[in-house]
Amino acid sequence: MSNKLYVIKIGGNIIDNEEKLAAFIKDFAAVEGLKVLVHGGGKLATKLAADLGIEQQMIDGRRITDSATLKIVTMVYAGAINKNVVAQLQAYGCNAIGLSGADGNAIKAHKRNHPTIDYGFVGDVDAVNTQLLKSLLEQNIAVVLAPITHDGHGLLLNTNADTIAQEAAKALSSIYDVELIYSFEKSGVLMNADDDSSVISTINPVYYKELKEKQIIFAGMIPKLDNAFAAINSGVSKVIIGKAEQLQQLIMGEAGTSITND
Amino acid sequence: MSNKLYVIKIGGNIIDNEEKLAAFIKDFAAVEGLKVLVHGGGKLATKLAADLGIEQQMIDGRRITDSATLKIVTMVYAGAINKNVVAQLQAYGCNAIGLSGADGNAIKAHKRNHPTIDYGFVGDVDAVNTQLLKSLLEQNIAVVLAPITHDGHGLLLNTNADTIAQEAAKALSSIYDVELIYSFEKSGVLMNADDDSSVISTINPVYYKELKEKQIIFAGMIPKLDNAFAAINSGVSKVIIGKAEQLQQLIMGEAGTSITND
Repeated sequence: MSNKLYVIKIGGNIIDNEEKLAAFIKDFAAVEGLKVLVHGGGKLATKLAADLGIEQQMIDGRRITDSATLKIVTMVYAGAINKNVVAQLQAYGCNAIGLSGADGNAIKAHKRNHPTIDYGFVGDVDAVNTQLLKSLLEQNIAVVLAPITHDGHGLLLNTNADTIAQEAAKALSSIYDVELIYSFEKSGVLMNADDDSSVISTINPVYYKELKEKQIIFAGMIPKLDNAFAAINSGVSKVIIGKAEQLQQLIMGEAGTSITND
Repeated sequence: MSNKLYVIKIGGNIIDNEEKLAAFIKDFAAVEGLKVLVHGGGKLATKLAADLGIEQQMIDGRRITDSATLKIVTMVYAGAINKNVVAQLQAYGCNAIGLSGADGNAIKAHKRNHPTIDYGFVGDVDAVNTQLLKSLLEQNIAVVLAPITHDGHGLLLNTNADTIAQEAAKALSSIYDVELIYSFEKSGVLMNADDDSSVISTINPVYYKELKEKQIIFAGMIPKLDNAFAAINSGVSKVIIGKAEQLQQLIMGEAGTSITND
């Protein structure tokens, strides 16, 4: 058995698009070998909150997870999205199991303790249960992680999906040769944000610093790349950022942006 | 390792009562040995549907699961309830994993094909994946089953929790010595429905026939007992029906109604 493991994150914009999601799921099902899928939440939770008249608080572009919002994201992320993705993977003959962090103690976290902002029920990851994931992966079951963790004291916590992908990839790199793929709506990290063909093929730490200084990389791309470098620095073999529609090419190294350490 | 397995169902009335649910979860966590928990849905789904202005169709006391209702029960049963139960079990040091039927192909079903009534997205169980459940149970993980199955073609299906408990118990009796416990708000099968102390301690097929003829057993109790006898007739060692608050006594044979085959 190969020791290679793919940890693949899909972004919210793909989750929100039924057609793109279906195509992605088909492609993910076709990926050979051991694999973990981490999905974000998309706009479904915001829509459900609006339908229920629950007001969403945002600070610096981050959703504040109050108690009502926690219930909603648990239902939408760990219920609706996670189970539908799993059922669709099964339809393509890919055995898959959907987990929140509470399931089998897969991902333990603690409630974020920020000096000035109360994020509410938001979790920062402490530990990934690699033994559980290994036991499932080695039964040829793809693991589908929802961005919900738990604190071990009965509390579920809303957790950033990019972070979950990074933490799962890092932890599993103690057992496997892990490739982490962040797939989203763009073709990769772009030289010009308006030109989807301007993909930067490789970014190392020196180049990253330069791209930030020139403000070619900015806003939401910075935490994504920080996550990617953190993964590379903690044992993950390869990080690739690119278009969800090109999953096979991303895996083959024929598309997207590669994050490297040299 | 003991070869005994408990399959324990909790009814919707317990799910709906935060205090009773918390007490039950503590008791379930304390049950020694291998165990499966099957939970119903309770009124949370009905409430969410009402809050969203989605009308519920009922025929003969059964909810018709249209597409909007399927989304709701998936969110509530496999999301909110299942993940909260699992997180609370973890808090009591009981490692648990929550599964819908789609997860790991745990429970495969087909959309009900009824000659006169279209139940919508309701599933009748075809197969329980005992190998998956065994692999989890033998890692000392309690399995928590939500009453949602899948058809293997991408469709999730709403499935009666009593039936899931019975099917899981039957299938797992090929591997384990299975005791099936239906726990709910009453002390057992009652001689007088208004007197919770009038518990019938044992019911065998002959006595069951008599109790039905005298209309001592009627309405919702009949499918529950039919389920119980079906389980006993298919390899389950013991079926006990009783009060959720008395879980330990039910297990010890000190409370509730025992269903026997002789």
